[in-house]
Amino acid sequence: MRLEQIGTIRTPFAGPVGTPIQPAFAEEAPGTVEVFAPFTAGLADLEGFERIWLIYWFHKAGPVQLRVRPFMDEGERGLFATRAPCRPNPIGISCVRLLAIEHNILRVADVDMLDGTPLLDIKPYAPCFDCFGVQRIGWLAQADRGQTTADDRFSSHKGEKP
Amino acid sequence: MRLEQIGTIRTPFAGPVGTPIQPAFAEEAPGTVEVFAPFTAGLADLEGFERIWLIYWFHKAGPVQLRVRPFMDEGERGLFATRAPCRPNPIGISCVRLLAIEHNILRVADVDMLDGTPLLDIKPYAPCFDCFGVQRIGWLAQADRGQTTADDRFSSHKGEKP
Repeated sequence: MRLEQIGTIRTPFAGPVGTPIQPAFAEEAPGTVEVFAPFTAGLADLEGFERIWLIYWFHKAGPVQLRVRPFMDEGERGLFATRAPCRPNPIGISCVRLLAIEHNILRVADVDMLDGTPLLDIKPYAPCFDCFGVQRIGWLAQADRGQTTADDRFSSHKGEKP
Repeated sequence: MRLEQIGTIRTPFAGPVGTPIQPAFAEEAPGTVEVFAPFTAGLADLEGFERIWLIYWFHKAGPVQLRVRPFMDEGERGLFATRAPCRPNPIGISCVRLLAIEHNILRVADVDMLDGTPLLDIKPYAPCFDCFGVQRIGWLAQADRGQTTADDRFSSHKGEKP
């Protein structure tokens, strides 16, 4: 199972410190997605969608940690109960707002990834596929909703200036 | 960017024909997820979540097609405007219901993947991260909602009996 970079995500966020931890907290942060030429035919019909999933590689994530202290909690949690980037397969999924497509460039908003993030896939977002009513959201029910941006705790370049 | 299989998804679906095309159409279809021993520490705290994202490899997908005829439509669409499996990086995301965790085995429902699917990642599902109200869902607004199961059009083993 080998991955191929199909594009690059450009965002205002050079390093983890201050980067939104989720699109829902990104306050419309703008970005662009450059899709490489061999793949642009696959973008047809995408512009009709208001939001899209970006699937990408956490290229600046540090080593795998199976227990982490997530941004929105004080305690340690199992990695798979969090969205932390230091995963066995460091794949991120983010639902961003699609503003426009100009040739192979997607203008998007609500980005929460670092500048230069390798793009792996794009999927359309549809509430009929992606929205489920749930009663239980585990530790997130007691999470600190004021903690909306990251620091460098999961970074491969801790303490470095961007 | 290399992937490591961290587990295996077991479902009632040996081949694509008749497999639900989305968890929302899976009518509670039951499955299990075996998480390999080196990764079980990461499952702590997951049981509090009613639904989880399974991130997996479409191991039976055929060659990449940048234009596809999706299950819910008659016409051809750009691949990235669909959830078809024949992708440059054949990564699937499915939000399934988590029923129980017994050691390294997750009992789940609403599965829409083939039996034996390699697991890449698990993430908690939370409406605050994953539910967005949208007005526009592209071609899906006119899609055939009666078409809820797959056939072998995207399979690497077309026409084969399971």
